[in-house]
Amino acid sequence: MKDDRPRISDVARLAGVSTATVSRALSNPALVSEDTRAAVQSAVTATGYRLNQAARNLRHRRTGGIVALVPNLANPFFSQILSGIASVLGPAGYNLLIADTRTAGAEGLLAYAEPSRADGLIVLDGSLPAAALTGAVPLVEACEWVPGLVAPRVKIDNRAAAGLAVDHLADLGHRRIGHVAGPRGNVLSEARLSGTAERLAARGLPFPAGAVLQGDFSLDSGRLAALAWLELAGDSRPTAMFLASDAMACGFIAEVQRHGISVPRDVSVVGFDDIELVAHVSPPLTTIRQPRAALGRVAAERLLRRLRGEADQEGDTILPVELVIRASTAPARE
Amino acid sequence: MKDDRPRISDVARLAGVSTATVSRALSNPALVSEDTRAAVQSAVTATGYRLNQAARNLRHRRTGGIVALVPNLANPFFSQILSGIASVLGPAGYNLLIADTRTAGAEGLLAYAEPSRADGLIVLDGSLPAAALTGAVPLVEACEWVPGLVAPRVKIDNRAAAGLAVDHLADLGHRRIGHVAGPRGNVLSEARLSGTAERLAARGLPFPAGAVLQGDFSLDSGRLAALAWLELAGDSRPTAMFLASDAMACGFIAEVQRHGISVPRDVSVVGFDDIELVAHVSPPLTTIRQPRAALGRVAAERLLRRLRGEADQEGDTILPVELVIRASTAPARE
Repeated sequence: MKDDRPRISDVARLAGVSTATVSRALSNPALVSEDTRAAVQSAVTATGYRLNQAARNLRHRRTGGIVALVPNLANPFFSQILSGIASVLGPAGYNLLIADTRTAGAEGLLAYAEPSRADGLIVLDGSLPAAALTGAVPLVEACEWVPGLVAPRVKIDNRAAAGLAVDHLADLGHRRIGHVAGPRGNVLSEARLSGTAERLAARGLPFPAGAVLQGDFSLDSGRLAALAWLELAGDSRPTAMFLASDAMACGFIAEVQRHGISVPRDVSVVGFDDIELVAHVSPPLTTIRQPRAALGRVAAERLLRRLRGEADQEGDTILPVELVIRASTAPARE
Repeated sequence: MKDDRPRISDVARLAGVSTATVSRALSNPALVSEDTRAAVQSAVTATGYRLNQAARNLRHRRTGGIVALVPNLANPFFSQILSGIASVLGPAGYNLLIADTRTAGAEGLLAYAEPSRADGLIVLDGSLPAAALTGAVPLVEACEWVPGLVAPRVKIDNRAAAGLAVDHLADLGHRRIGHVAGPRGNVLSEARLSGTAERLAARGLPFPAGAVLQGDFSLDSGRLAALAWLELAGDSRPTAMFLASDAMACGFIAEVQRHGISVPRDVSVVGFDDIELVAHVSPPLTTIRQPRAALGRVAAERLLRRLRGEADQEGDTILPVELVIRASTAPARE
């Protein structure tokens, strides 16, 4: 069968350059002049030439792709992290490929961790089985982490961050401080819950079982937590709540306001994440700012260093968080 | 060089089944019993066997991947659409790979449209060059569309949706209705702007040049539009504003409130998208609800039909939108 698809030599002839120059212009445009690049691009368009990316990558023993494994794409929390990852990988010549681990299935995940699929992985889902990820391709974990998996981690100090929230509320004079936790078994939920418990103990404040409400990071679970909070008797009801996500904090505030409760007059509320909109809700939310774009960028940079075989610092990268004080917290009354 | 990696025959021996059964269990688990599946999975784990996905896909002349091209991953608007896409592709045995067109670069995009990289494309960015996408792999457009590209489109009727917003404000008695447009040149911005102009004309209402403010869909651009709105003289200042995105509407409301303006008493505001949080801002936002998850699902379903060579309906799929009336709009005063 005759193959009459345009060849690189057709492109070279039309552009008036050598095939080596075409190849260079396409694979590493920074090495050729602006004029050459434009001529090659025009000739590519005119001939309809398409890189055989698979053949090229096979020669280089790489796929050109980095896969990010995300627990739930529907959660907008991940968008800025992914954007940070993409901003580093794109200029480095890698394609970012993003997989939703909820919908990919176990078999799909095995395939993602396969060297013929991706050159490296960025794992953002701490609930994945360590065995499926071990020893396949170089990987870095970001935000969440898989217990038992040995890999560089780029994250925040979730315990210390919870401590910042508790300190802020305790400094405002609150003595009954409650917590709405993220989903059970999630590494972030556990770290934020134990950080809350530790700091309350350090401040000599009580943390009875009833002061911990269960959520799952979603807005709706924050609303349900508000209903549970409203059920608590007045003298055991916390006057300040620290919620493990901004989405839950927004749901909590909307629901208590619907019941005639004023925030922060009747209850102070602190969230976690600093997603963009919470500066513009009413009242604007006091929260813990996660450096989401930076988490993505640094994870991508560490993975690139591993792929290039460059020396990488040992251990975890801990990025700083910040308490952003807005109008949803106020001094305790009485 | 001896290759001592575990082979499919090792897995079969350990699981006590044939290699054909192992292959079937891994590629199409629904065809084998639960017990067989479990036995094969245990044997895969025990041996450390990894599918050679590339070899398998080469045999089937497919990559197993579908690439979604997204204009800006940092924009949380896309998260539910991507989640809808993933919910269809995962069960169908395809990996969803997501690329940010801002950071991938022109060369990267050429590579994405290459059959050795992906079996199909879902294009969510209307600003891509049609030439780079034509004739490569089967593709479907969702939400946005590339002028001149011949492909099935899954979208909403943006003109009619803008008409719903205008009708709502006009029905409330507003006679000076303004618009904050999305980025220039964007197909959605243009359709929403002309839909606004058409419906205002049909209702016999004025639409002077000063009533159109320029935005770019972002929250910050909504705040800048609010500052421009505040500069308008009282008798030319619109009493109602329709903004082409919820993010802009949130920025607009936050900024006018900061200047002592009450929404909706002093100005009614309608957004576009119905992102989750806008039901919980203050005041809750009246907006046009886009069926985001369904847009993603239907686009993925149409692409799968094309990949299977099944008959696909001709032309565009137009999904319905809905006006969601909340508390940010009120009857015109006087």
